[in-house]
Amino acid sequence: MKMYDVIIIGGGPAAIVTGITIKKFFKERSVLMVKEDSDGLVPCGIPYIFHALENDADKNKMGPKPFVDLGGEVLINKVVKVNKTIKEILLENGEVYGYHKLVFATGSLPQIPDFIPGYDFKNVFYIQKNFQYIKGLTAKIKNFKNIIIVGGGFIGAEVAEQMAATNLNVTLIESEPFCFSKAFSPELCQIATEELQKTSVKVMTSNIVKEIGGTNSSVNHIVLSDGTMLEADAVIFSIGYRANTQLAVETGLELNKYGDIHVDNYGRTSIRDISAVGDCAQTFGFLTGRSDIIKLASTATAEARTLGHNIFGVRIKKCSSGTLGVFSTEINGLAMAAAGANEKNAAEAGVQLVSAKYSAPDRHPGTLNGTSNLTVKLYASPVDGSIIGGEAWGGKSAGEIINIISMAIQKSITVYELVSFQIGTHPLLTASPISNPIIRAAEEIIYQLHQYK
Amino acid sequence: MKMYDVIIIGGGPAAIVTGITIKKFFKERSVLMVKEDSDGLVPCGIPYIFHALENDADKNKMGPKPFVDLGGEVLINKVVKVNKTIKEILLENGEVYGYHKLVFATGSLPQIPDFIPGYDFKNVFYIQKNFQYIKGLTAKIKNFKNIIIVGGGFIGAEVAEQMAATNLNVTLIESEPFCFSKAFSPELCQIATEELQKTSVKVMTSNIVKEIGGTNSSVNHIVLSDGTMLEADAVIFSIGYRANTQLAVETGLELNKYGDIHVDNYGRTSIRDISAVGDCAQTFGFLTGRSDIIKLASTATAEARTLGHNIFGVRIKKCSSGTLGVFSTEINGLAMAAAGANEKNAAEAGVQLVSAKYSAPDRHPGTLNGTSNLTVKLYASPVDGSIIGGEAWGGKSAGEIINIISMAIQKSITVYELVSFQIGTHPLLTASPISNPIIRAAEEIIYQLHQYK
Repeated sequence: MKMYDVIIIGGGPAAIVTGITIKKFFKERSVLMVKEDSDGLVPCGIPYIFHALENDADKNKMGPKPFVDLGGEVLINKVVKVNKTIKEILLENGEVYGYHKLVFATGSLPQIPDFIPGYDFKNVFYIQKNFQYIKGLTAKIKNFKNIIIVGGGFIGAEVAEQMAATNLNVTLIESEPFCFSKAFSPELCQIATEELQKTSVKVMTSNIVKEIGGTNSSVNHIVLSDGTMLEADAVIFSIGYRANTQLAVETGLELNKYGDIHVDNYGRTSIRDISAVGDCAQTFGFLTGRSDIIKLASTATAEARTLGHNIFGVRIKKCSSGTLGVFSTEINGLAMAAAGANEKNAAEAGVQLVSAKYSAPDRHPGTLNGTSNLTVKLYASPVDGSIIGGEAWGGKSAGEIINIISMAIQKSITVYELVSFQIGTHPLLTASPISNPIIRAAEEIIYQLHQYK
Repeated sequence: MKMYDVIIIGGGPAAIVTGITIKKFFKERSVLMVKEDSDGLVPCGIPYIFHALENDADKNKMGPKPFVDLGGEVLINKVVKVNKTIKEILLENGEVYGYHKLVFATGSLPQIPDFIPGYDFKNVFYIQKNFQYIKGLTAKIKNFKNIIIVGGGFIGAEVAEQMAATNLNVTLIESEPFCFSKAFSPELCQIATEELQKTSVKVMTSNIVKEIGGTNSSVNHIVLSDGTMLEADAVIFSIGYRANTQLAVETGLELNKYGDIHVDNYGRTSIRDISAVGDCAQTFGFLTGRSDIIKLASTATAEARTLGHNIFGVRIKKCSSGTLGVFSTEINGLAMAAAGANEKNAAEAGVQLVSAKYSAPDRHPGTLNGTSNLTVKLYASPVDGSIIGGEAWGGKSAGEIINIISMAIQKSITVYELVSFQIGTHPLLTASPISNPIIRAAEEIIYQLHQYK
């Protein structure tokens, strides 16, 4: 029986980053990755397969090559059993491997709404992170005209926008009054939803799919909670993901109330020498330390780096006090991003805040070609002025500006520090130094907090 | 005689930001700005007047409107004398105004190379931050064919690139082996210079202008130190700026060895109730605390905010321990940026460092249209791993990525903290979370510093 220092179960971003981190920093350690599919997908890239990547799933492939290049080994197979006592795994083909350290990076699976009649009809789809499934969907979609997408989170909205750009007749159904309600502030949710409505996507909010109808178990219409009936050649559900934990449960790992594998700061589970990382593992919210559901490739890779460095003993202390969700998207050419607290999630968590925003052209002078307006909204603690959240929307630079805000949140930088913060500016690349929207929004918060005399 | 709580001498970014900060936070205080020119220019935007802004200086105007909107007053006039004892200023037109606080924001003037024969010939120009002068230059330039630009710093190189794009025959003369040598590492200097050479600009490095020749005191050629003679309809010098301090000297303000007005962390000069800010004021280098020459609009505005909040008494402690130069530019479509230490300036300052770089596509998957390669180079202290410098080059996002690095430098964030740093990513906006180049470059430094077992 072959022994490995580390066996990783899974092949997504968490698995790959765990693998490359270990193989880079502990060259001599043997690492085996066992994954079920030979081809993987860049998870956040899936919506773009349907248009920007020209309906070609191969353009969105993501494999373990960087891990293999460092000397990692990969097996395409399924782990059917973990024997935690003698530290062995059993594969579907009967092979057995021993491990010193085992990593669950088993990811997540789409939520299946089995409470909706017709949920299992033909041409009802889910955005699975599975190459063959998505490749198959791109082929089938060419025969359809009327597409119903259910769920106005990032993936649902992005898939809707992309499919609509290929002349499909796309309707998006969202239960909340606006899309993106799990990630954005009410203000940005409204902006984002209105942007989506400017495309050819028909957005129906505050509505729920009550029934999927069809003949011979093949969908041909849906019925909404308000009674509306819509023709449908296909229904695509994108209503969230749940941790893939069947093997974890069978192994005896503890789960939290959301069904995610319980782990500490370094990914260590309730069983010695077994770790979990990424979508299958639990997260704690940055603001409150409560269990939270944040399943992002970006947070998964941060967990994976922390795990990879520390799997043989903690060497590098984790710097963050919890998982900070940092979200970004682009709809109809408008980039939008958010990190940490906003009015809605802070109210839910009982967290007080002050907020302010500032808008400025993202080039200077604003008469330059290619200038967009950029808005930054900051949220700060009302007592010490530390940044606890932020949003940015406008041109593409919002995608990195949210990472400046994200660093400010993680380092508890205050609005007072931002007054003397030094930044780089250039006419073709950034806002004017006079109007840097992060600094100016911070000053707006100081203005709210203090009456100067 | 009219009295003001604050009189600001000057009208550039430092003056404007000082003015708007005071008027925003101390509404009731009266603030007068005395500036010599009715029209100002976005200083960093000047090179783009010659092409991207369509030879139209009006498209690069910058005025004190945001200050006036807050209730600030503006006089177009020249201050000829400051009476520091009775706290009055005298204008050229004979008017006298009293002040409680006086701010020198008198900016900088181009270096004039009066040691070069012919430096004062007709059609020898300087990149003055003066609207009428630059407007006049755009008109004259249309009659020229062969332009010599002297000095391969940001302004010289950017003016060269822009003028060359209008079919002028442009030669750039730089004394160092590569352009941008005051701001970029040797590696990035070479990349930037090669990028400039891909345009129609003829770049001549390691060369000095020895003589400007002509007839009737009007330039028609130049002679270089290597003996080369070049035809020239115009010579444009861009060899740096020096503080504009004539009035400061006459007032009795102390200057430092570089001729900049001596100030403390809050812009306070050697004379009570007189401050100085921006290009005319001294800076201390972030790494060493030594006097340094950093004359940027971005650092000027940070100084101006600090001054504005604290002019009636320090209320918000300055957070930075010195001036961090953060530079960015775009040449031939390649964005390039730098902050803090690099091999060259660290060696000059006797500062030890380790460095590493990492390159990745700035979209994911990299098969998306519009993807550029992005490289991040980080410099860290070899003992505690704190980030002390960085560079980024590639697509336009380099302009904000340098501000993430800049924040890391200012907060002494370590490469170890970056392992668990949480960032936001999106296919259309950023690199893959697996390949975030800041985090991966930090890991390369950890790899250099530590052999793991």
